Amino acid sequence: MSSTLLRNATIVTMNDRDDIATGDVLIRDDKIVSVGGTITDYAADTKIVEAKDKLLLPGFVQTHIHLCQTLFRGRADDMALMDWLRTRIWPLEAAHDEESVYYSAMLGIGELLRSGTTTILDMETVSHTDSAFQALSHSGIRAISGKVMMDAGGDVPAGLQEETARSIAESTRLLEQWHGHDGGRLGYAYCPRFVVSCSEQLLKEVRDLSAHYNVLVHTHAAENREEIDLVMSQRGMRNIVYLDHIGLTSPRLVLAHCIWLDDEERDILKRTGTKMTHCPGSNLKLASGIALIPELLEDGIGMGIGADGAPCNNTLDMFQEMRLTALLHKARCGPETMDARTVLRMATIGGARTLGLDHLIGSIEPGKKADLAMLDLNDFHTFPSYEADPYSRVVYAASRGNVDSVWVDGKQVVEGGLVRTVDKQVVLREADRSIARLLKRI
Amino acid sequence: MSSTLLRNATIVTMNDRDDIATGDVLIRDDKIVSVGGTITDYAADTKIVEAKDKLLLPGFVQTHIHLCQTLFRGRADDMALMDWLRTRIWPLEAAHDEESVYYSAMLGIGELLRSGTTTILDMETVSHTDSAFQALSHSGIRAISGKVMMDAGGDVPAGLQEETARSIAESTRLLEQWHGHDGGRLGYAYCPRFVVSCSEQLLKEVRDLSAHYNVLVHTHAAENREEIDLVMSQRGMRNIVYLDHIGLTSPRLVLAHCIWLDDEERDILKRTGTKMTHCPGSNLKLASGIALIPELLEDGIGMGIGADGAPCNNTLDMFQEMRLTALLHKARCGPETMDARTVLRMATIGGARTLGLDHLIGSIEPGKKADLAMLDLNDFHTFPSYEADPYSRVVYAASRGNVDSVWVDGKQVVEGGLVRTVDKQVVLREADRSIARLLKRI
Repeated sequence: MSSTLLRNATIVTMNDRDDIATGDVLIRDDKIVSVGGTITDYAADTKIVEAKDKLLLPGFVQTHIHLCQTLFRGRADDMALMDWLRTRIWPLEAAHDEESVYYSAMLGIGELLRSGTTTILDMETVSHTDSAFQALSHSGIRAISGKVMMDAGGDVPAGLQEETARSIAESTRLLEQWHGHDGGRLGYAYCPRFVVSCSEQLLKEVRDLSAHYNVLVHTHAAENREEIDLVMSQRGMRNIVYLDHIGLTSPRLVLAHCIWLDDEERDILKRTGTKMTHCPGSNLKLASGIALIPELLEDGIGMGIGADGAPCNNTLDMFQEMRLTALLHKARCGPETMDARTVLRMATIGGARTLGLDHLIGSIEPGKKADLAMLDLNDFHTFPSYEADPYSRVVYAASRGNVDSVWVDGKQVVEGGLVRTVDKQVVLREADRSIARLLKRI
Repeated sequence: MSSTLLRNATIVTMNDRDDIATGDVLIRDDKIVSVGGTITDYAADTKIVEAKDKLLLPGFVQTHIHLCQTLFRGRADDMALMDWLRTRIWPLEAAHDEESVYYSAMLGIGELLRSGTTTILDMETVSHTDSAFQALSHSGIRAISGKVMMDAGGDVPAGLQEETARSIAESTRLLEQWHGHDGGRLGYAYCPRFVVSCSEQLLKEVRDLSAHYNVLVHTHAAENREEIDLVMSQRGMRNIVYLDHIGLTSPRLVLAHCIWLDDEERDILKRTGTKMTHCPGSNLKLASGIALIPELLEDGIGMGIGADGAPCNNTLDMFQEMRLTALLHKARCGPETMDARTVLRMATIGGARTLGLDHLIGSIEPGKKADLAMLDLNDFHTFPSYEADPYSRVVYAASRGNVDSVWVDGKQVVEGGLVRTVDKQVVLREADRSIARLLKRI
């Protein structure tokens, strides 16, 4: 049994009442025990952390990440989705080996933890997904991940082409190995890439298996107009209509992007409780478009925020994505749209709900997992502090450098800005070696 | 005479050939003496800085900043321009005193230097502008600044209302005191706020004085549709047409924003060599709109990038503005639009040209001023480094935390991420005291 007492913090709880508490937070093992006020009832061997002048947030939840692409950062700039996939990302993914998948994940996780993200929904590549789970396990981050599934569609390199049965079998083997691992910190999701690269048979089996195992399905939809046209020509329906037609829509389905939705598709998301992820950085960089987030929130559609992959962003930094989410919709909908509190909700409890994990994470409340980010805002760019609104400071002004410490499952993974669970020098060195090897291979 | 030798750097010169050099940079006094290769001819007392694995950039040039508003960060979120000015910014500016103007400037300069900006075009408030120049002088940043001029228009608090003659006289007094100060590191610009708050007589006198003294005129134009309508109703012309009509357009005029231009106005900017500043963060946050930057660049219009003021951004961070400039125009114009190199040019040599300072700053070349930013990209979010494109790393991935050291005029103002010329603890404390005093006053 281990305990940590964070003392004298400003606590942005993100609970249902949006309480801002002041005082102490007591962590015992993996859980938050007590929040606010002065806590005096703690074990003698409790670790005391002084949090005076610090802001405590629930760790950020990113609901769409591709750790296997972190090594490809900067290798595919200034391209549109299908071109980006066919000429850069798919060949590079096909060239991956066990070691490169591991270090790609570690490089991404280092960035994520250091910038306050404690939970991700991740999509790996076709092969070597055990390596990614090993990285997730070693690093201490909370994650739901899965191997990508691709059994159809053209322009896919040989190394990514799968037979349907084999794709399903390998996914389920990984699920049985990793779902619930590390005391439940790791989970599995079926990850059909997108309709364009998946047979109807595969999607229907995924539908049934996700119900059987009660796990998420993580895919992309309505990201790009060329993609939409491909879905229409292959299946004769719009993207979300097709997913609904085959019965894949459900509260267990998480769709990245959802930029190009018509009214019928918005209704489908609403009616079925299907979730989505807003990826503003990626959507801008790939010139995909801008999702109608204020309207979709108004519809009551559950959503999180995600940085997507390093080669289409090019960071995995929730501060960047929050700022974009707050700024991007005002010119169209008015300056009061997407205020800082709304955006911070999406980045924390909204993301947790999207993953069905809001009973465990997404807010600072007794009984929840101790997944926390502690920010030091004593810097030029986050001052003045006098009667300052904490939501505004976090969303509009702060950046990764303000993250002082991070805990996941009660374990401190970042301390004084240094990631304790990822050996930076080793990971940077091996990341360079790995991408050099992959580039030689393609 | 003092010398510094930066050794073994990767040098992103931003010269006319876009050379990326490797090796050493020798600084003598305020100037760059030699660039690239191994430099062996230097004085015995030369300070040696090891820059292996570091990236050297010309310091960023921001061509639209309001230092006097830094204290107002977070006090005016989620509002549109005219409302934002009338109910928050003008009353707060009117409440300023000498000390608050000084610490507002110091807070902003601390943020700017720490994030690699070495030159700014700044606009102060109506009064206490000597305090701002004192801060600029003490901090070591390169700046062109001036008091704002407001002699017309409604809804302006008493403290900001000026008589025309007095506004002109005070501006010229400040010019004579501060233009060319600190060996030319400081300069003066006439700063009529915008057409809405300036009489025609004032604008015409500014036109003549800027020609007489050969100094810039720094103002706002075509930012917001309500502003455009006000100009039309007051002057019977569109904003830029009016500025041209009274003869204010010239290569010495720098217009912030230029979002709502018609074809005639674009032609005027082109024909007259008038410059502009793209302020993407501010334009999004105030819901002003998105300037047609790719088209205006195609027109050959000279432009820089600026963060504007803290209450409409909410940072003064060139990395944020570069990333937005790169991302924001792709959805409309295609993913290849506004590539990283184009954006980094705007942020350095483009800004220098906008200010008429490209013979002195904006690139790393022998004979230019030693205004440099040294980046350490050995971090998760800026890796892999193997055969990586430096433009992409800087614009799409890096952030203020990557800035290790900064020189202005050959003097090191940031070292190991710490601003040497601004006492952070004093400035943070006095910033809080100052904003508390101003809030009490209004």
